[in-house]
Amino acid sequence: MNSTSPTPNDNKLAQQTPARPPLKSLDDALLELLANASPLTSVEDVLLQLADGRVLGNDVVAQLDVPGFDNSSVDGYALNVADTSTALREGLPQSARIPAGHFSGNLAGGTVARIFTGAPIPVNANAVVMQEDCLVSPQPGGDVVRLTQAPTPGQNIRMRGEDIANGQVVVRKGTRLTPAHLGLLASIGQAHVSVLKPLRVALLSTGDELVMPGAVAADALPPGAIFSSNGFFLSTLLTRLGAHVTELAIVADTLADTQAALQHAANDHDLIVSTGGVSVGEEDHVKPAVQSLGSLDLWALAIKPGKPFAYGRINRLNAASCAHFVGLPGNPVSSFVTFVVLVRPFIDRLLGVSHAGVHALPMTAHFNWPKPDKRREFLRVKRNTLGGLDLYPNQSSGVLTSVSWADGFVDNPPSQSISRGDTVSFWPMSQCIA
Amino acid sequence: MNSTSPTPNDNKLAQQTPARPPLKSLDDALLELLANASPLTSVEDVLLQLADGRVLGNDVVAQLDVPGFDNSSVDGYALNVADTSTALREGLPQSARIPAGHFSGNLAGGTVARIFTGAPIPVNANAVVMQEDCLVSPQPGGDVVRLTQAPTPGQNIRMRGEDIANGQVVVRKGTRLTPAHLGLLASIGQAHVSVLKPLRVALLSTGDELVMPGAVAADALPPGAIFSSNGFFLSTLLTRLGAHVTELAIVADTLADTQAALQHAANDHDLIVSTGGVSVGEEDHVKPAVQSLGSLDLWALAIKPGKPFAYGRINRLNAASCAHFVGLPGNPVSSFVTFVVLVRPFIDRLLGVSHAGVHALPMTAHFNWPKPDKRREFLRVKRNTLGGLDLYPNQSSGVLTSVSWADGFVDNPPSQSISRGDTVSFWPMSQCIA
Repeated sequence: MNSTSPTPNDNKLAQQTPARPPLKSLDDALLELLANASPLTSVEDVLLQLADGRVLGNDVVAQLDVPGFDNSSVDGYALNVADTSTALREGLPQSARIPAGHFSGNLAGGTVARIFTGAPIPVNANAVVMQEDCLVSPQPGGDVVRLTQAPTPGQNIRMRGEDIANGQVVVRKGTRLTPAHLGLLASIGQAHVSVLKPLRVALLSTGDELVMPGAVAADALPPGAIFSSNGFFLSTLLTRLGAHVTELAIVADTLADTQAALQHAANDHDLIVSTGGVSVGEEDHVKPAVQSLGSLDLWALAIKPGKPFAYGRINRLNAASCAHFVGLPGNPVSSFVTFVVLVRPFIDRLLGVSHAGVHALPMTAHFNWPKPDKRREFLRVKRNTLGGLDLYPNQSSGVLTSVSWADGFVDNPPSQSISRGDTVSFWPMSQCIA
Repeated sequence: MNSTSPTPNDNKLAQQTPARPPLKSLDDALLELLANASPLTSVEDVLLQLADGRVLGNDVVAQLDVPGFDNSSVDGYALNVADTSTALREGLPQSARIPAGHFSGNLAGGTVARIFTGAPIPVNANAVVMQEDCLVSPQPGGDVVRLTQAPTPGQNIRMRGEDIANGQVVVRKGTRLTPAHLGLLASIGQAHVSVLKPLRVALLSTGDELVMPGAVAADALPPGAIFSSNGFFLSTLLTRLGAHVTELAIVADTLADTQAALQHAANDHDLIVSTGGVSVGEEDHVKPAVQSLGSLDLWALAIKPGKPFAYGRINRLNAASCAHFVGLPGNPVSSFVTFVVLVRPFIDRLLGVSHAGVHALPMTAHFNWPKPDKRREFLRVKRNTLGGLDLYPNQSSGVLTSVSWADGFVDNPPSQSISRGDTVSFWPMSQCIA
């Protein structure tokens, strides 16, 4: 717990106050944050069609073999390799025709069956020859099929249970479902799945200077004001993670109103995310309100952008439980980066997602970065057609131009300068936001 | 146009029929497919909150500077560097206090203003000193602030228009909007945006062998049947691209019913995607139905998985226009891969998305692939903790286990074997499906 008083008093000796928390490394912050996340356990059944992005609540076990029967992987002719010599010499008469979805009985000895991709192999057949490798002669009694080379047993046959065996775990609990998982679950006959209930997140943007887009025309923005933007990307990022997002409006800018709004939100939500108001010097009712309703830790992260960060809990009324509180910096880029590096893993942990994290890639810098910060930096970069990384010229954290332009971040260690040609650690944006 | 007759007759000499289209390279197929895609132009206004994943219909131009005023990038004290020598010696009295969102007038000469991050720089001030670098002494008449080192002009000031200049194009037409774009557009005061109308896609799974998940229990699947799975991942992939998806049900398996269903779908949709029924040997009413209602080209793609592919058009009733028709292979993995490599770029072209395509990455194979196919292969692989790629052992195209497990594809050239340690071309899954 930081010693910041509810009403910051900045008129004392700078050496004494405001008390600045020591810089905390991102790895330490992440460990500490994740230690606070007890996985939620409430599940619900949803139609498979609606389960994209949701987190599986139990292991799903196959109740059948896939394929469920030996079947042909090509269009061609099924036969028994015992008949190979006749098939190569004079040919074998066609005695059956098996399209996909149609089941046939036995293949008569000394004959072939016309067969199509996915169709079941008849009993007594043990190989399929592609139609391109057959010579088919129409005869009065039906087609006769001659082979041009000897087949091997099992050739062009997909064996029962080759892909999935009855009883096998097909998708594990804690998997965030993707389109491919939905297809896979359908293929074993699952029409619905048990998934974690959506995380309920309340979102709050604070700052006297904020004006909602649409409230005034862009050219009529009052002096000192800026348009509120963090809520727009945060709610979208959260929605992509399957969360249900509520935008909180705090009507009057008083401590009592802020306390009431946060208490209400805590009762109905798992997580409250606030942006702005977490710098030590900032004047804001959110910090003292959270402190009065539970607890709050203020951190100074050793990353750039993204220094101030707060984690707290708000006790629920009439319940021995609490909602999580996360305070992000107000600068849009700082807010975006801290969401990606801390909030996203925190949410995954809350939902019990078994594996998360970004696969960093070694890539070549096509830029110079001569004056690195003492903190670990997340530089906004884009891959170019030469296979290297370009740097967005303005790395200001004030607006999202750099993040919109970028297709990833360079994770740059503290105080490390970068010269063109250096290998750097690249975090693809597609992994950070999906 | 391929010469396949509406009712395939496979009982002739194999050398003559069924006519197999020559293998077509993926690059040729993509070029030919994209040449058929005239970009759609219908736009609609949507709330910014609802625009994630949508395609911007016009260039958005900033109507203001961002920041809109010179402001402080830190918590500290604003002063004029002309007063530096006094500030270093005896200190300057604090004459004003400027929180973010509050506008102040002039800074009196020979004084400082307490200022917070984001707050406007008062007239006559030209530098901000971080509070950590100030010594603040409370005096009867108010605080006096002494500096420990000389400030430079412009220090810690974000200049008006530094991030976005009034009149500048902020996001270009044809951009698929991401969370960061939404934040950026909010920051210039956009409450809604003009986006391309959602692509209307009808989805059709064909095959006598298909049973819908839920229609029967997994252990009661009739002999020869399989559960339908392609529709589940295709509809999700399409939804992720912002499309409105209709699942088509063709009730009776006759040519007339299929024609009627396709004609109906063509009238109300931009694109019809069918899976299954596009192999030359397959028995299916979709091919002849599309041919009778417009045109159809059958291609054999030189890729594995994913060989058969069809592109066609269905003329609309009472309109001089047509719907696009794409026929994907019925094998789930083939269907997935052809969607990623062909349908997705086709959809992006239809929506006028300016830049698409996958950034392939050079990565190290931690597996052997001694028997490559003659066709270009898309192998399902996953990054391991050593920074290399593991191969899914079963590369069968029959089920999606490999795709669900994988976090990308190796794009392997025709007939190229791979040895452990080789550098291969990796397509990250996150780029393929988001």
